[in-house]
Formats: sequence, C-alpha cells, structure tokens
Amino acid sequence: MGQNLALNIAEKGFPISVYNRTTSKVDETLQRAQSEGPFPLSGHHTPRDFVLSLQRPRSVIILVKAGSPVDQTIAALSEHMESGDCIIDGGNEWYENTERRIQEVSNRGILYLGMGVSGGEEGARNGPSLMPGGSFQAYNNIKDILEKVAAQVEDGPCVTYIGEGGAGNFVKMVHNGIEYGDMQLISEAYDVLKNVGGLSNEELGEIFGEWNRGELESFLIEITSDIFKVKDDLADGGLVDKILDKTGMKGTGKWTVQQAAELSVAAPTIAASLDCRYLSGLKEERENAAEILREAGLKSGIDKKRLIDDVRQALYASKICSYAQGMNLLRAKSIEKGWNLNLGEMARIWKGGCIIRAVFLDRIKKAYQRNPNLASLIVDPDFAREMVQRQAAWRRVVGTAISAGISTPGMCASLAYFDTYRRARLPANLVQAQRDLFGAHTYERIDRPGAFHTEWTKLARKSNSAGVLL
Amino acid sequence: MGQNLALNIAEKGFPISVYNRTTSKVDETLQRAQSEGPFPLSGHHTPRDFVLSLQRPRSVIILVKAGSPVDQTIAALSEHMESGDCIIDGGNEWYENTERRIQEVSNRGILYLGMGVSGGEEGARNGPSLMPGGSFQAYNNIKDILEKVAAQVEDGPCVTYIGEGGAGNFVKMVHNGIEYGDMQLISEAYDVLKNVGGLSNEELGEIFGEWNRGELESFLIEITSDIFKVKDDLADGGLVDKILDKTGMKGTGKWTVQQAAELSVAAPTIAASLDCRYLSGLKEERENAAEILREAGLKSGIDKKRLIDDVRQALYASKICSYAQGMNLLRAKSIEKGWNLNLGEMARIWKGGCIIRAVFLDRIKKAYQRNPNLASLIVDPDFAREMVQRQAAWRRVVGTAISAGISTPGMCASLAYFDTYRRARLPANLVQAQRDLFGAHTYERIDRPGAFHTEWTKLARKSNSAGVLL
Repeated sequence: MGQNLALNIAEKGFPISVYNRTTSKVDETLQRAQSEGPFPLSGHHTPRDFVLSLQRPRSVIILVKAGSPVDQTIAALSEHMESGDCIIDGGNEWYENTERRIQEVSNRGILYLGMGVSGGEEGARNGPSLMPGGSFQAYNNIKDILEKVAAQVEDGPCVTYIGEGGAGNFVKMVHNGIEYGDMQLISEAYDVLKNVGGLSNEELGEIFGEWNRGELESFLIEITSDIFKVKDDLADGGLVDKILDKTGMKGTGKWTVQQAAELSVAAPTIAASLDCRYLSGLKEERENAAEILREAGLKSGIDKKRLIDDVRQALYASKICSYAQGMNLLRAKSIEKGWNLNLGEMARIWKGGCIIRAVFLDRIKKAYQRNPNLASLIVDPDFAREMVQRQAAWRRVVGTAISAGISTPGMCASLAYFDTYRRARLPANLVQAQRDLFGAHTYERIDRPGAFHTEWTKLARKSNSAGVLL
Repeated sequence: MGQNLALNIAEKGFPISVYNRTTSKVDETLQRAQSEGPFPLSGHHTPRDFVLSLQRPRSVIILVKAGSPVDQTIAALSEHMESGDCIIDGGNEWYENTERRIQEVSNRGILYLGMGVSGGEEGARNGPSLMPGGSFQAYNNIKDILEKVAAQVEDGPCVTYIGEGGAGNFVKMVHNGIEYGDMQLISEAYDVLKNVGGLSNEELGEIFGEWNRGELESFLIEITSDIFKVKDDLADGGLVDKILDKTGMKGTGKWTVQQAAELSVAAPTIAASLDCRYLSGLKEERENAAEILREAGLKSGIDKKRLIDDVRQALYASKICSYAQGMNLLRAKSIEKGWNLNLGEMARIWKGGCIIRAVFLDRIKKAYQRNPNLASLIVDPDFAREMVQRQAAWRRVVGTAISAGISTPGMCASLAYFDTYRRARLPANLVQAQRDLFGAHTYERIDRPGAFHTEWTKLARKSNSAGVLL
C-alpha cells in the first residue's frame, strides 16, 4: 500500500522520498517510479537519510502493521525529526493508540496524524478515501498533497480533516464496520437468489450488473457482478462456487461492534455481519450440525421475477438501516470525545476511492446537510419514504427466507432494527416490571412522573386468591 | 444484599460479624438478626474491630459497588488482615479487576475470591446461586458456609468452585447476559401475543402461568405470569400497561457482548437484547419515527390458539439458542484463560437461587455430562430433536411478526443463528471472493488445498467480451 501511495503522490508532481528496512523494496519502488513515470521519487536506505532528505516541516507517512510495528517505526524515525515535523500513520490503528502517540511525540514538538486510508492497493495508487485526524496544523501542512492524491468526485476530493485525536482512525473503523455490513447483506441477497430463487451464476452476474445501474450502484455491487462472471480454470463451473465458505477478518469489525456496545448504540446489522464471519469459520461444526438438524423449512412456489425485485428492495432497505447504525455510532463517539464530526462530510469523502463508495452516499450527505441533527437516517424524509415503499418487499424476502430455512441474519437484524425504532411503544415495560420485581430497580410510568416500586408477587398472589373464603 | 447474605449465613448457624461505614446500617442488621432469629451475628463500627473479631484464617465478604469502592474497601480492611486471610468480593465486578486485586493482595499473603452472587435481595436471604473464583484454598476455607447458604436443589447446593482468577466474575457476567436474552425473548412473546394475537393481560397471566408448568418452567416465566395479574392502583387496568417502556441496565450485558466479539463467538440473541435496551431508551426518537414511518405490515387473520402454542415453541427454541451462545462464550474464555470450566456444573449451579433458574438447566447439565466436548447445545441429540420439532412453529411466529411489523429481534437472531449454524455451506464464499478482489486477501478452495488469488476484474471483463468479433 505504501508503495502505491508514494507513486500516487509522486505522480501528482510532489517530490517524495521512500524508505523501507528491506532495501529491495525501496529499489522496486524506484523502478516503478521510472517505468510508470518518470516521477519525482527518491529512495533511501536508512531512517536518517530518509528523514534528512525531506524539507521542513517534514511530513512522514508510515504504512506498517498496526500496533507495536508503528511504535517501533516512530522510534526509528522520530530521533532524526525536529519540532514542527509530522508523523502520519496510515494504518488501521486502534484510535486510542493514536491518542497515546500524539501525547508521546508532542514532548518533542512533533505533530501526529492518524489517517484512515480506504481503497486497498488500487485505491492507494489511483485515489483513496482519506480520513486524517489529529493535529490540524499537521493536516494543513499536507492538505494540498492529500487533496490531490485522494479520489476525486464531483463535489471535491475524498478527504477532509476529520477531527482531533484518534477521530480519523475511529471514522475509518466505522467505515470498515459498514463495509462488513454491506458485504454480509450482499451475500444474503446472493444466498436467497441462488437457494430460494434457483438463479445461476450467469443470472446472478446479470442481476447484480443491472442493480449496479440503479439505486444500489456501488463498488461492492459492481465487483459482485464481476465475481459471478469468472469461470474456474481448474474445474468446471463458476469459480465462486469453489471458494471455501470461511471468511477472514482483521479486527476493525470487532472493534466497531464493541464500541457500539460501549456507546449504547444499537448496531445489529454490523454485529450480524461479524457473527456470520465467526460462524463461517466453524465449517466442520456446521457440516456436523447440517447432518443433525437436516430438516429445514419448506420452499413454496417462487415467482422468480418478483423475488429478484423484492431482494433488490430488501437489500437497499437493509443497507440504509446499516448506514443509519454506523452514522449514529460516529455521532455518539463524536459527542463523547468532542470531535465535532460532520456526518455529511464523512458520507461525502466515502463517495469515492473506498470500498463502500456508492451513489447513495451522496444522498446521505444531503440528508445531513438538510438536517445536521437528524436523529437517524431512516427518519430523513427521503429515506423514510423509500423505506416505507420497500418494506412490503423486504418483509416478503425475510419471511420467505425464514420459511425456506435460509438464514438472512443481516436483513433480519436491519428489519428488526427498523421495526423496533419505528415503534412508539415497545414491550420494554415488561422488562422493567421484571427488573423491579426481582431487583427492586423501580420503574417509571407513562402517565405521571417519579420512580415507582411495586410488591408484584405479593399483589399478584393476593389477587389470585381474591374471594377465597376459608 | 450484604445484610441479607449475612442473615442467611447467621441463620445457618455460622457466627458472623458485620460492618458498614454507616453505623445505622450495622444496627439495623443487628435488629433484624434479633427479630428474624435470634442469629449469631455481631456488629462492628470500625474496620479494625470488624476484622479482629474474626477467627483466623479470616474470610471477609464485601458487597459494595463494583470498581473503586471495592479497592477502597480492600485498602481499609486489608491493613488489619494477615497472611492466609481471604477477601471475597460478591459484586458484579469486571473479571480483570479481580485478577488485578488477586495480584495486589497476594503481596501480603492475602487470598482473594471474586464471587458472582445471583438471586437479588431475596436470593441473598434465602439461598442465592454462588459463583466463586480465584484462590482454591480460600474457597476450601469457606466451602462449608457457602454450601449451606446457597440455594439447594435436588442435586446439591448451587455453588461450586468455578476456576482461577476472575472466572467467578466472568461466569456471573455471562449468566447476566443470558438473563438479558431470556427477558428479551419473553417480552417479544408478550408483544406478539398482545399485538398480533390480541390477548388481554388476564389471558397473558394465564398463558404464562400455564407455560410455567411445562418445559418453560422457570423463575422468569413465573414472575411474568404474576406481573400480568397486578392491577394498577392509580388508574384503571393492569399496572404493566402503565410502565414506561425504557429499560435500565448495569453493564454486565454490555460486557458479555463485547467479550463475545473479542473471543470470536457469535452471541446474537444476547446482543439483540442489549440493543433493544438501548433502543428502548430512545423513547422520543421512537415516537417521532412512529409518526414518520407509520405504515406497518399487515395483520392477517389469526388463529389465536395456534398462535399461543406457536409462540411457546418459538420462545423455547429461541431460548436454547441463547443458552448455546452463552455456554460457547464460557468455553471460549475458559480455553483462553485455562480456567477448565465445567459447563455442566455451571448449568447445575444456575438451577436454583438465580434469576435464570429453570427446569431446563438440568437438561443442559445432562447434555454436557453426556458429552463435555459438545460443540453446541443445539446439536445435543435431545435439544436437536426439540429444535427440529419446534422449527415450523418458530418460523411461523417470526414470519407472522415480520408481516405484522412487530419486531422480534431476539427470536429473529436466534433463528438466524440456528439457520446459519445448521448450514454446511454459507454464502461466505462470496465474501471471500470480494475480499480477494479488492484486498488480495486470497481464498481457499473446497476441492484442493492452498491459498489462491484471482485477478477477478480482469477475468470478468475478459469473459464479458468473449466472442465479440470486431
């Protein structure tokens, strides 16, 4: 990723120095700078040469594995750096590590940015989405470069100053959580279309291609269409069918779910996608369970055309709920930390470069522009109308999947979220009564203020025996 | 709680000393020991007198708010304690705090137990479920007392030595997570029966009472039946209808969900119950959303009798999934920490005294006795048979609720968990293809070993243009 980002920066005409402990990597980058360019890129073989090759105030971007390798790299570089210089960590780092490092390097006057970078290798080379947080001064020093190397969309480059401290890492983490949700929802749509609708890979490729020309237009839908078109060159059929159904992960989804719990924010769609990755890993257990719990639900006659249209709507509605959860998580953290996150801007910088880039992020941006205090995306007038229009199809898909014994945990979680959020009255009154009964936790009433406690059991047993004369 | 536990111990004939910073609380306990006893209970007004009143090796049980009050209490008491004495924290403490304190007091030779206590005030007085973890020697010193004061069920007292370090706190935390799940599932059953089935409080009281005489027999079902019988003394109707639908919580459910994510264990039912507590808190937002998103699903004609029977089965099946999640979380932590938890024993000590006490915990105990390495409760032959028998009803309830726009997030999460776990092949292959496409994460194949990477986009676009002659 570092190599690609360096080439991207150099291509934009900014002189750039590169360094890696492995000399051959430096040389390889120099060769690529020649063959793809020539670009103004110089290679260095020691941290000292590397740092001293830069003009002050220096901006050093490091792209190494999150955790202690970052600390080691900071130690190696910072001894040659001076007050006013800046270190920029572009990895998927836990935001608190960035906040610790901001403190640590500040002793020597060094500035620090934790910058989320999304878009993978391809994005790094051709325009990523960048989420820099930390020192505003450091951001301003490097702003011109970031704005040129970031992905460009019609309303500007996909970068903005996110906020202080670890805000950039946190926003990137939530971006990844949303990405987990998107991928899970797409895989459920695939599952239902394949296993309930009986669609072939060719049909799936076409359907996702078609969906990519409508409201679902996005990188992930586009690549999904591509995936179904790839034939296996080792055996007959589509390659996707030969892939082992165990998903890997790298930790940001887990952090997102843990932070949501920490901040009292419901993020069930993102949590469902994490759980599915965990359950996918239990391949042998699942094979065994499939033997034991063989009898599944029943499939009834399916109107294929309607199913496809329904699944599209279910996917879209589920996706809106997932983004609503992610946005509310960002807001909750922003309030806790005083980051002052601009949610519309977050949606805007995700419009290009990153994995979740999608046409509908522009609509999210506009929703928050219209009302920065929007309680939830799903009550924005436009999204609300769309949700209401799609809910019948959505309920049909989830209901059909449930009858068929096909799990759609993400779509179910989104729908349950929607139906919970849109209910003025939940059965939580019963939970409060239970808590008051066994823990004397007291309860509030709907018709008068105050905290109440009731001797439930005594009263219930009394009324039970009312009229009994002994 | 401390007062009740002290009276319970004294009632069993063990001489006990009590101390509280607030003198009047000590005196009140003494009065209760007189009026409910007389019991062998002595009151003390300073930490020194209190500690010195005890025979060595001393066992001091502290019941204060988790966190720093525990540290303060330890500091105040331990200065008068000697090597071989033991401190037992009975609060809902984060297990790592217990592990830190075990280390801290060990410098002075003091032993330590973190002991989960479940059953509320009533349980503390008449027999709680006790989950002591930490020093095995300290457990043995106080074992006779704990076995006498714990709830008694047919196969023994509801206490056992849980394991080293913070194992007792961790097991209590998961117990509470399971409790969250149970309460959520019961509230969903209530919601469906009331809002789809149109049942009155009287009918609900009867139905839950009836359920309490069958496979669902448990403390929570029993008290739920009681709750529906209580009339409001401030207005007409049942009191439960007047309770504000905002649920409080104290943190153990949150920890459970965070630990599940940390340990790569799917616990969606417990997570759904936590999310519902969070969403219940957004009362005003929900009222607003209900206005905007008014059009709900449609209710069709309902066969009330069948609905009731279906809901009972759905509740039972959902509950099994929730317990399977909790048990697997305990096992994952036990492996990580080397605690050697005996899952059957955990089920056994929850059979009495605690909030989740239920007849079916005996069956869980037996399932793990039959097979201590059971991968999941839901593949135990007995539970598996029950799940398969109940799945049609379960799918009907969740499907009906979804059509009606009633959220059943816990039941949905359990069903999705079941349907995910029982599938040999999940759509996770697509997720792996996506990850390989945009991140070169590679994938495995089902038909041969090795890690593979494919240039998906190139191949897809190529095959797209296959056969095109220009």
